[in-house]
Amino acid sequence: MRLSQYFLPVLKETPAEAQIASHRLMLRAGMVRQTSAGIYAWLPLGLAVLRNIEAIVREEQNRAGAQELLMPTLQSADLWRKSGRYDSYGKEMLRITDRHEREMLYGPTNEEMITDIFAGSVRSYRDLPRNLYHIQWKFRDEIRPRFGVMRGREFLMKDAYSFDLDVEGARRSYNRMFVSYLRTYARLGLRAIPMAADTGPIGGDMSHEFLILAETGESGVFLHRDLIDMAVPGDDLNFETDDLAAIQQQWTGLYAATDEKHDEARFNAEVPEEKRVAARGIEVGHIFFFGTKYSEAMACQVTGPDGALVPVQMGSYGIGVSRLVGAIIEASHDENGIIWPESVAPFRVGLINLKTGDAETDAACADIYQKLMNAGVTVLYDDTDERAGAKFSTMDLIGLPWQLIVGPRGLKNGVVELKNRASGERAEISAEAALARIIG
Amino acid sequence: MRLSQYFLPVLKETPAEAQIASHRLMLRAGMVRQTSAGIYAWLPLGLAVLRNIEAIVREEQNRAGAQELLMPTLQSADLWRKSGRYDSYGKEMLRITDRHEREMLYGPTNEEMITDIFAGSVRSYRDLPRNLYHIQWKFRDEIRPRFGVMRGREFLMKDAYSFDLDVEGARRSYNRMFVSYLRTYARLGLRAIPMAADTGPIGGDMSHEFLILAETGESGVFLHRDLIDMAVPGDDLNFETDDLAAIQQQWTGLYAATDEKHDEARFNAEVPEEKRVAARGIEVGHIFFFGTKYSEAMACQVTGPDGALVPVQMGSYGIGVSRLVGAIIEASHDENGIIWPESVAPFRVGLINLKTGDAETDAACADIYQKLMNAGVTVLYDDTDERAGAKFSTMDLIGLPWQLIVGPRGLKNGVVELKNRASGERAEISAEAALARIIG
Repeated sequence: MRLSQYFLPVLKETPAEAQIASHRLMLRAGMVRQTSAGIYAWLPLGLAVLRNIEAIVREEQNRAGAQELLMPTLQSADLWRKSGRYDSYGKEMLRITDRHEREMLYGPTNEEMITDIFAGSVRSYRDLPRNLYHIQWKFRDEIRPRFGVMRGREFLMKDAYSFDLDVEGARRSYNRMFVSYLRTYARLGLRAIPMAADTGPIGGDMSHEFLILAETGESGVFLHRDLIDMAVPGDDLNFETDDLAAIQQQWTGLYAATDEKHDEARFNAEVPEEKRVAARGIEVGHIFFFGTKYSEAMACQVTGPDGALVPVQMGSYGIGVSRLVGAIIEASHDENGIIWPESVAPFRVGLINLKTGDAETDAACADIYQKLMNAGVTVLYDDTDERAGAKFSTMDLIGLPWQLIVGPRGLKNGVVELKNRASGERAEISAEAALARIIG
Repeated sequence: MRLSQYFLPVLKETPAEAQIASHRLMLRAGMVRQTSAGIYAWLPLGLAVLRNIEAIVREEQNRAGAQELLMPTLQSADLWRKSGRYDSYGKEMLRITDRHEREMLYGPTNEEMITDIFAGSVRSYRDLPRNLYHIQWKFRDEIRPRFGVMRGREFLMKDAYSFDLDVEGARRSYNRMFVSYLRTYARLGLRAIPMAADTGPIGGDMSHEFLILAETGESGVFLHRDLIDMAVPGDDLNFETDDLAAIQQQWTGLYAATDEKHDEARFNAEVPEEKRVAARGIEVGHIFFFGTKYSEAMACQVTGPDGALVPVQMGSYGIGVSRLVGAIIEASHDENGIIWPESVAPFRVGLINLKTGDAETDAACADIYQKLMNAGVTVLYDDTDERAGAKFSTMDLIGLPWQLIVGPRGLKNGVVELKNRASGERAEISAEAALARIIG
């Protein structure tokens, strides 16, 4: 994409309303624009990141055997009356009345609807287990939306729901998602730590939040240092044959807790002093077993092997997809701007022409641009007539992994400059060598 | 995907509420489930088709130089007060009040919002032309939603918006979308005919609806037969250098009108009797030039080459993405079920095991299944223990382009059966020959 033709309204000034780094940087980099309190339009650069994250989340859900569907944003109030949550949910639920005076709502989550769909579709234990997920916009009418997309009102979430015949099966489904989440965050360039969370009325040990460490995190977290370096299951993970329970136990065997659940005495007793880490974290996922809470309310039953009707055992598994855009920036930026992990970067390369209009420089850039595209590398080519300093600032701000800087002086010596945004490392090398290093 | 593990709740009975073929077939094939009046959940099979259509629409928008962003579903009423449409829109607009008593609405379209975003981002004629689009869920509170996804309340739409300095530029942007739409529908396996539509207060010739021919269409249409066979621009189309105006003129030079705009006398005078076609059609797109209607209301101005501020010239370009799922079925089905065009089919091949549990048949199917997946061919493998007749009915119902039928009797003779769903053609050939024909 040529920058001269790209819709990228970067801001020179830091917006006054933005309190945290990710919000400031997303506005400045032209990634989003607020359209109402807590509601954002995703401009092309922001949407590219959002889609990259979504694609990784989808691939890892599919790999773990979950199946994608798509439920609508609006739901009927009657569905939520069956579970009792229509009255209990409070003002964060956006309630809507249609032209026929029917009560509806903008879904904040989908337990009721997926249970109702499942109840109308499945009859026998032989149709279990199943895990169904969707990636859909949701709405929570936060009283004070803030921190940009980190706590917006309209937000994109992946929510999966598992259906099993018994608790043992539900535990296997839970472990699948647990392990899948470790992989998902690792692919996004994040280190996410699972921490025990409140399980609500059911009790047990099957509820975890996943938090990433970031200085600007909303929660205090306390953890065993080894969790920060623990190996995440790789591409060779086999969800059918590997011991997922053992992986889950490995990750939950060491102390990790948010400040809400922190027990200082236990922390000191269980974790040697040199391994104690007190930091701050951002919640980016939550998984939860809730048994028959919804299946009983919505009559979601199957015939078991013995012919008797039993309510299905369910769990739900959420990842905040739009929130992750902000969370990744909180975890990966410096004073000059964003530093995208390669896996989610909106473009992999920023190509800077230092003297647009100079025939030799234009030709060298056009050649590099074409070669990168031919190799399937996404590239944003700054072909504008801005001055060099402004071009460098913009490229640092939007945080593409590689900058390739081409000017007449370098070309005279047969070199271009290749800069790695994350390490800051610069090399003056031939265009061919630079391309080889990027294309790999 | 193995059918034994796939969430595909096909219905044996024809649902009483469904009046038209696509609605009946989508419910029976387990593609969608109604969750409220005119609101549907897309189950995995339906979502796969929706995503395939969306991907083609996106590719063709990008090819024509449009850039994707994503605006939110909810909008503020104040934005619509600026254009005057908040009061004029009527009851089809779903109006919402949030917890702070702010008036909002579920967007039925996005002219106001995109104009406001553009006004806040662009200052100079040098940033023009631009075409920005999104593919997002919208809501129209139809008084009597019906015909399934063809006239639902929550629906997925692609809407693009062009911004130009002057009317001449706007005409070029309009022609780009016009030609791009011809390609888009052709890739979806549809013949869409552009027909002049009402232009509203601006007048002129820059408004067209695109209709596909289908016996069950909602509108009567009258057209010159040559439009049905006219060649659509191919892959070698170049939006920068080809004469798009000439292509537009070629397509609009022959008579074509919906019953609303039909002029019988003109039809008879312009079209030789043997070329007159009276048929029925379904609207699947609408493109529209509206000049400065919104840019003046929302103060969307740029500095022109002479330094003077001018409001930008705008057009909008819609494709009903979720409606297209129904429209394609209306145009392509028989008494046994859906007949998917290859480009949008949820799976390309349905593999039928006629005797699950028979070691030789299972092994042959497993081998074929693996080979198809290795070749990147999407395949739904019916590995259930249903009887053969039920398997054939389900495969015909869900309409995958190819059926590959494997049973012990055929295997004894070294053959499998390959059936083409569209032509009904069957061949008893070796598995290798069948794979070669599918993989191509």
